[in-house]
Amino acid sequence: MFDFRYYTPTKVVFGRNTESQVADLIREAGGTKVLIHYGGGSVVRSGLLQKVTDCLNAAGIPHVSLGGAVPNPRLGLVLEGIELCRREKVDFLLAVGGGSCIDSAKAIGYGVTNEGDVWDFYDYRRKATACLPLGVILTIAATGSEMSDSSVITREEGLIKRGYSSDLGRPRFAIMNPELTMTLPDYQTACGCADIMMHTMERYFTNGGNMEITDSIAEGLLRTVMANAEILVRDPRNYDARAEIMWAGSLSHNGLTGCGNDGGDWMTHKLEHELGGLYDVAHGAGLTALWGSWARYVYQNCLPRFKKYALRVMGVEDLGTDEEIALKGIEATEDFFRRIHMPTNLRELGVNATEEDLITMAHKCAVGVKGAKGSARLLREEDMLAILKASM
Amino acid sequence: MFDFRYYTPTKVVFGRNTESQVADLIREAGGTKVLIHYGGGSVVRSGLLQKVTDCLNAAGIPHVSLGGAVPNPRLGLVLEGIELCRREKVDFLLAVGGGSCIDSAKAIGYGVTNEGDVWDFYDYRRKATACLPLGVILTIAATGSEMSDSSVITREEGLIKRGYSSDLGRPRFAIMNPELTMTLPDYQTACGCADIMMHTMERYFTNGGNMEITDSIAEGLLRTVMANAEILVRDPRNYDARAEIMWAGSLSHNGLTGCGNDGGDWMTHKLEHELGGLYDVAHGAGLTALWGSWARYVYQNCLPRFKKYALRVMGVEDLGTDEEIALKGIEATEDFFRRIHMPTNLRELGVNATEEDLITMAHKCAVGVKGAKGSARLLREEDMLAILKASM
Repeated sequence: MFDFRYYTPTKVVFGRNTESQVADLIREAGGTKVLIHYGGGSVVRSGLLQKVTDCLNAAGIPHVSLGGAVPNPRLGLVLEGIELCRREKVDFLLAVGGGSCIDSAKAIGYGVTNEGDVWDFYDYRRKATACLPLGVILTIAATGSEMSDSSVITREEGLIKRGYSSDLGRPRFAIMNPELTMTLPDYQTACGCADIMMHTMERYFTNGGNMEITDSIAEGLLRTVMANAEILVRDPRNYDARAEIMWAGSLSHNGLTGCGNDGGDWMTHKLEHELGGLYDVAHGAGLTALWGSWARYVYQNCLPRFKKYALRVMGVEDLGTDEEIALKGIEATEDFFRRIHMPTNLRELGVNATEEDLITMAHKCAVGVKGAKGSARLLREEDMLAILKASM
Repeated sequence: MFDFRYYTPTKVVFGRNTESQVADLIREAGGTKVLIHYGGGSVVRSGLLQKVTDCLNAAGIPHVSLGGAVPNPRLGLVLEGIELCRREKVDFLLAVGGGSCIDSAKAIGYGVTNEGDVWDFYDYRRKATACLPLGVILTIAATGSEMSDSSVITREEGLIKRGYSSDLGRPRFAIMNPELTMTLPDYQTACGCADIMMHTMERYFTNGGNMEITDSIAEGLLRTVMANAEILVRDPRNYDARAEIMWAGSLSHNGLTGCGNDGGDWMTHKLEHELGGLYDVAHGAGLTALWGSWARYVYQNCLPRFKKYALRVMGVEDLGTDEEIALKGIEATEDFFRRIHMPTNLRELGVNATEEDLITMAHKCAVGVKGAKGSARLLREEDMLAILKASM
């Protein structure tokens, strides 16, 4: 068991119509001039953006807005947001959307309050000393950015995708109304469920410092997400299932499912980042396309955890060797991914990668992790390439 | 499923020797003059108090101290603390101890920052508008006060024990070093485990608004506490078991195990408060002495939950009627309480109550809840008396 810090200051306001509390929450957090940051047209079409601006207008809170946050949010828009905030003397950021929009808002927050190039933080050159206070109205359950310390930004030049983590970026409040996620396409809902699961699985499959209470929370979370993801395949407007998954998304990435461990494995995420850099794929689908190949490559080095997962999460019977049980757990996970229409290899993901592409991805990934990384099994460039090849 | 708010701003610093970080954490929280509040002689004898003052001295943070917090912490000491803080211009409270000491510090914090009588808050007459910032070095895993919004204070006049809850009172940081709990007497360790379990069980046995993810967290927490409480009976200095229970104590009462429900039942706690008012009993032991009688009185009104608990937490086999399964779960819980040497009735608790005492307790309890309360089953005065009689 490792020492840990746990810090989740975000005030969660969960339930139907909670977005109508936005003005009070901004006031409580001390905001007097707001940048409303959002993504594409869906929050416009759904009327959510109008509702939010009506709330702010009614409360007499001045605001400006900036749309255009895209999946794999771009540095260019972040720089535009920083400029806008400074010009308009914005002192509070409100992200209305999913993880991309929240991540983009976090980056804007760092940029406004720190001198110099905001990319420095994402390029691991220095640490931010402040961030503008940030609130969230969540419309996609997936990344957990609404409670997490992390944000991922892509620099257009060279398509470099990098993450920066700081407690300063944790949102002040997160408004979570499960109804706001009901209009998502089925594919995006399933991608979100996959991403949520992977945030916990990356922390679960480690060779260091596990706590039983953390495991039991992680296992319960995974079972809950799986059961409700399947409900949403049949019944996308099921409020309770939407709520279970939305709350699981926050708990999966706010630190709770990693307390006491060694920090997690994260290699499926690292490989997927390279995949997302080369191809236009949804993050959650990229993760499921790689996970089985990663798991088969590493499970023998992390057998007690894969066995525990098989028994407690996937309901595999305690029969046969540990290896057999572990493999059944991996197979059952892939079966589940298929049931929610997620890919289990690159082909199903729609990616026809050449061997050269695979080599490029493995190389970039190895450089990104400074040579080797992974807790379930330490992976070097040749291991990364082997996993990518196995996922074809 | 009910709407909910979840707010746990406390920065948790968990692990060996974490108390040496106290000065940095106080600085981070803006403290410049500290009241160190503690209980009896154990933090003096163990050298912890000296270590803390050494840390503050080395960091140049001025401080005063106030000992004497007792189980069922008293209003008199709170008033003394308020006076001391005002005189010494204290701007940060550091509680070094268990729940009583933390609760007492919270009350001091409300008293210093609000005009008028601090008892008003505990007497439900008005709400606090501020609290001094508060940090904790935890030495007993039990009440969860280190992350919770609640504090319980006893007014000497009439021995009235009352709780007040406010997000303002949530500690800024909680230093949790499991080693600091190793010198606790076995009985107090077991009482702490019982209290931790009951904070989750009070939230679990309800007739409204359950979420599957909350249930799965609650069930995992209960199983973890039980397994590790039994380890500590045999091996009180087991670090990992101490750590599991310490972290479970915080998670059990910070709100996590109640997300989405109707607020919980809490009648075992209410009845125990009356018991603690009349007799000098440890809170955790009072809870286990009453729980079985409460459970048998209410389970038929909350059968799906008692059945789920029996199957998932107590490992009862899914055979027989729902009633039979539920009763087996209750029996298994009492068996567990006995294995950790906790009482399952008033006699084992060492209380020889007269019928008059029982009538007094039931009456005071009914008055305290304004007539009737309870989610598993709504209890009126006659029900409370019946439960107390059954617990003899």
